[in-house]
Amino acid sequence: MSQTVSNERFRKRFTTFNEIGATDRDGVNRPSLSGANQEARDTLVEWFEKATLDVTIDEMGNIFGRRAGADNALDPVLIGSHIDSQYNGGRYDGVVGVLGALEVVETLNDEDIQTERPIEVVAWSNEEGVRFQPDMLGSGVFAGEFDLEYAYARTDKEGKTFGEELERIGYKGDESCEPRDLHCYFELHVEQGPQLSERGRSVGVVEGVYGFVWMNAAFIGSADHAGPTPMHLRHDALVATSDVIESVRRITGTGGDDLVGTVGSIDVHPNSINVIPERVDFTVDFRSYDNDVVDHATEQIQREIEHAANRESVEMEYEEIMRVDAEPFDDGCIETVEQAANAVGAEYMRIVSGAGHDANYLNEICPTSMIFVPSVDGISHTEDEYTEWEDVIRGADVLLHVVLEKANMGEVEQ
Amino acid sequence: MSQTVSNERFRKRFTTFNEIGATDRDGVNRPSLSGANQEARDTLVEWFEKATLDVTIDEMGNIFGRRAGADNALDPVLIGSHIDSQYNGGRYDGVVGVLGALEVVETLNDEDIQTERPIEVVAWSNEEGVRFQPDMLGSGVFAGEFDLEYAYARTDKEGKTFGEELERIGYKGDESCEPRDLHCYFELHVEQGPQLSERGRSVGVVEGVYGFVWMNAAFIGSADHAGPTPMHLRHDALVATSDVIESVRRITGTGGDDLVGTVGSIDVHPNSINVIPERVDFTVDFRSYDNDVVDHATEQIQREIEHAANRESVEMEYEEIMRVDAEPFDDGCIETVEQAANAVGAEYMRIVSGAGHDANYLNEICPTSMIFVPSVDGISHTEDEYTEWEDVIRGADVLLHVVLEKANMGEVEQ
Repeated sequence: MSQTVSNERFRKRFTTFNEIGATDRDGVNRPSLSGANQEARDTLVEWFEKATLDVTIDEMGNIFGRRAGADNALDPVLIGSHIDSQYNGGRYDGVVGVLGALEVVETLNDEDIQTERPIEVVAWSNEEGVRFQPDMLGSGVFAGEFDLEYAYARTDKEGKTFGEELERIGYKGDESCEPRDLHCYFELHVEQGPQLSERGRSVGVVEGVYGFVWMNAAFIGSADHAGPTPMHLRHDALVATSDVIESVRRITGTGGDDLVGTVGSIDVHPNSINVIPERVDFTVDFRSYDNDVVDHATEQIQREIEHAANRESVEMEYEEIMRVDAEPFDDGCIETVEQAANAVGAEYMRIVSGAGHDANYLNEICPTSMIFVPSVDGISHTEDEYTEWEDVIRGADVLLHVVLEKANMGEVEQ
Repeated sequence: MSQTVSNERFRKRFTTFNEIGATDRDGVNRPSLSGANQEARDTLVEWFEKATLDVTIDEMGNIFGRRAGADNALDPVLIGSHIDSQYNGGRYDGVVGVLGALEVVETLNDEDIQTERPIEVVAWSNEEGVRFQPDMLGSGVFAGEFDLEYAYARTDKEGKTFGEELERIGYKGDESCEPRDLHCYFELHVEQGPQLSERGRSVGVVEGVYGFVWMNAAFIGSADHAGPTPMHLRHDALVATSDVIESVRRITGTGGDDLVGTVGSIDVHPNSINVIPERVDFTVDFRSYDNDVVDHATEQIQREIEHAANRESVEMEYEEIMRVDAEPFDDGCIETVEQAANAVGAEYMRIVSGAGHDANYLNEICPTSMIFVPSVDGISHTEDEYTEWEDVIRGADVLLHVVLEKANMGEVEQ
């Protein structure tokens, strides 16, 4: 297998696609179900049809393009990612995986290759979760994680629902959005972390995705005047919070090799230079590939929250708002990606994803793995997101080899 | 001297006055130059005139009511405070001192007491500084601390200037606002701290006001994804900030008996649960009655900011935005307050004010002291602010004795 994708066609499409919702600073602004997202969908459907794919839109607005196999009774190989973006996000996140999958199919067309299995290219709805929470909503409903009605009822900050907005932009399809038989799923994506670029590797063979716990917590003290209130009479909610921030950092130092912990959001009331903070609401995020490590860190931080409240004599509140177990991908699929990386001569490494992806949910209904390409300096979710083009091409070549391997294996079922 | 103020009249006026801008939760909402502030001013002027005071309004809207003395060539004794409030603030802050001063004059009227010196009652404009910064603006211009044009140009959040708004409510007076000869100034005020209530004293003899330094500071790191970014590659602006919050607390433990330090305000960008904080802006407030202690704490926290930036490899910014030296009041005035507290049989203590007052600026142009009455649990600047009524009356009685002492000493100049 010496096929490679077309550098020229892929690059041209990547550039054209990212003119939709382009920002002044080389990013894109195409949040879920926005006008720019609608235009991007229209362009993608046009390209799917041009590539003679059979297009279907499901009830969640997930867009599928199917290429027939020699035996269409066989379960399809599904490949793809998402085309919605962060607000003023990067050009690579999601797009590389959808246009890369399309490019794989175009290459098969160019070479007149008939696979045993059908191949489907997919663009999942609402992966980013910046306009409608939770994230990965389209793949979540597809995998049976969320009800359709729940998804339709998600609202943005203006009170518009996902269902209304999906209908408004003309992408509420007829196809049922529910689990169906798939041979396997592969997703090409930028790493969004620094490991590949730090170690000089051009491909990541993704073994799985970190599990994580999200918590909301608060301390409630007294909003006394910063002048006349002696230190020993203070109940400072921000001092208690800073204890916890330090504890999160300390716990990550001892809790396990890959444990990461973040306090990303903090809101102080009344937030005035000369008033002792009365109430602080903050978040905690712990992630690891080992669920026990996340559990242990969560137990430790709960004790630290209690200790901090005790030390500062403030009230406290905390609750776990989300828990997702670590998701090890399918051994066979991981090996297929590794063999493909070898086949294209890529310097690769096995890697675990710290970020969540649509592949998390697909992994629950079919054998799954992912292919990562490097994010320069690990930067993502901003306009500065950047991946060397040769790495994008190499990633698509790996995906091409994976598809040839998986889709050609017509009769072989494990 | 056995005169006491009229409990009944004072209480009735206090109740009537606080119906203006009353909130549902027993507070008042009469921020500077608001409609409620205008109505409160109108009521005060009406009561001044009823008490046969000669009313003048100066260019800053400071309201003076003058009671003639036996010798009107002598410098007057000035007493008063302010009637603007915090947003949804308390009923006692400022009001006790203005209505208490009026009550002192009414008592002299009742008793037909002719003092040697004239007595003036004052309500200073814009003490709170919540709508127009800086605070203590009326007394500041009066004492020559700020130019009139600077004061007029202060803007609120809607872009309205102090000068326009003062004119709109009809309180831009003709009287020049500048330093003039005063015999002395006394201000009755609630403590806004817990010391009197903690030690069971009903009167505070105020020896001076804490000095303070205000700083703005910021850390600037990288907004990486909280999942795929390993701990050793993070530049977390909030972790650096929490180092500084802990340092402020530590420095207050060793920096001097009365040193207090507060991080009251903190703004995190982008403030998202799964993004490492890129930028944090925060404030530092240090106060002590010893300027050297404040200086030393300020130097220490600057070093700590540098160390925290270094440890987390983030950029830093800091600047001192305000520095006010400790303001010891006049020994003679302090002794007069102490003697008056003894004369009315009050359980008193000498005290230093942690909060700033109009008396700070008056102290720069004439001998000054203050009389504090207890704030229950030290609560102030909220609707929960409360002072026992018998303590308010006792404070007004102390002020009456102080005025009799100072205003009667017609010929005695030190």
